[in-house]
Amino acid sequence: MIQQIAPQTGVAFTLKKGEQLQVIDPQGMQVSDMVLFNQHDIREKISSGKTLDFEESILISKGNYLWSNRSRKMIKLLEDTNGRNDFLLAPCSPETFQIMYNNHEYHPSCFENLYTNLAAYNILPDDIPTAFNIFMNVQFNSKGKLSVLPPMSQPNDYVLFEAQMDLIVGLTACSAEDSNGGTFKPIHYKIISNKG
Amino acid sequence: MIQQIAPQTGVAFTLKKGEQLQVIDPQGMQVSDMVLFNQHDIREKISSGKTLDFEESILISKGNYLWSNRSRKMIKLLEDTNGRNDFLLAPCSPETFQIMYNNHEYHPSCFENLYTNLAAYNILPDDIPTAFNIFMNVQFNSKGKLSVLPPMSQPNDYVLFEAQMDLIVGLTACSAEDSNGGTFKPIHYKIISNKG
Repeated sequence: MIQQIAPQTGVAFTLKKGEQLQVIDPQGMQVSDMVLFNQHDIREKISSGKTLDFEESILISKGNYLWSNRSRKMIKLLEDTNGRNDFLLAPCSPETFQIMYNNHEYHPSCFENLYTNLAAYNILPDDIPTAFNIFMNVQFNSKGKLSVLPPMSQPNDYVLFEAQMDLIVGLTACSAEDSNGGTFKPIHYKIISNKG
Repeated sequence: MIQQIAPQTGVAFTLKKGEQLQVIDPQGMQVSDMVLFNQHDIREKISSGKTLDFEESILISKGNYLWSNRSRKMIKLLEDTNGRNDFLLAPCSPETFQIMYNNHEYHPSCFENLYTNLAAYNILPDDIPTAFNIFMNVQFNSKGKLSVLPPMSQPNDYVLFEAQMDLIVGLTACSAEDSNGGTFKPIHYKIISNKG
C-alpha cells in the first residue's frame, strides 16, 4: 500500500531486516530526507562520514549501502531510477532559513519534521544525524564549491531500499525552497514485506 | 608552549572562547583528526553536514568556520598554510582497517585515540562525530569518486583556529597508512591564550 507524506511534513516508522522500502517522488522535483536508527539501540545511526568512506564516493546510488557510526551496513540501495541523491548536507532546520534564506519567520523544516515524528522512539533533536537526502541535487565543482539545484527527478522516480538490520526510519517531504525549486510537493512511500 | 602528540596517539583538552589553537605538522605529510564539543553541553558538537551547508563548500580552509549540530559556529580557521583539509570521511577505526585494508589484527586508530582521551569528559565512542581531518588530502572527481592521497603538507605547515565558544577538543596524530603515505609521524599543537 502506498502511503503519502504531505508537503512539508514527515513520518517515522519501523522497517525490519529484509523488508524493502520504496521512496517515490510522485510529481517529480521533490526531495525526501531520510535518517535511520538501529531499532534495538538508537545510539547506532546512519553516518555520512562512514558511508562516504566505505563506498569511496560522494554520490550514493544503486548498489551502495548506507553505513552506521558503528561501521555496519544499515540499508542497501537496490534500485534508483533518478540516480542523484545527496549525503553531504544536514537537514534544513529553522537556522537554515535564518542563515541561508534570511527568513526569520517560522518556517517548517525537515529537522523539525524528523525530530517531532521520531520523538515517539525516544529520539531527541540532538540525535538527528546528517540525513540521506533522496533526489536532492547538490552539485560540486573541482574546487569543492557546492550548489543546491532543483532535483532532476521525474514523476514516479523512486529509490528502492532493503534493510540490513531492524530499523527506525524518519522520512520527510522537504520543506526548503532551494531543494525543490520552490515547489512543495508530497512524497510517497511503500513498505514491501518479505513475508509475502 | 608547543606540545607533541606522539605518532598514532591522541589528546583531549579544553579551549576557551577566544583562545587560539595552532595545529602543526612538524615533519610534513601527516594528518590530524579533530573533534569539538561544547564544553558546557557535550551533546553539541561539530557537524560536517551543517558546516558544508553553511560554508557552501566541500573544502574548508582559511576564513571558514566549523559549525555545530545546533547550527552555531564552534571555531574559525584564521590561517591555513597548507590549505587542504577533509571533512567528508569518518575517523579511521578498527573497522576501517578490517574493511578497507583487510587487516584483522589490532591496529591503532584515530577513533580509539579520540574516544579513550575524551572519556575523561564523559564522551563515549558513539558520541564521536565525523572529524575535521586537518591536512588530509581527499581528492574527488566530477563523478564523486573519492581517493585518499598523501597529504601535501610541508614541514611546519599549520592551521590556526580561534574558538567561538568554550570547547572540548579531541586531536590525533593519524594512524592510517593511506592518510599519511605509510609514515606515522607526530603532530604538534599550541594553545595561544587571549590573556597575554
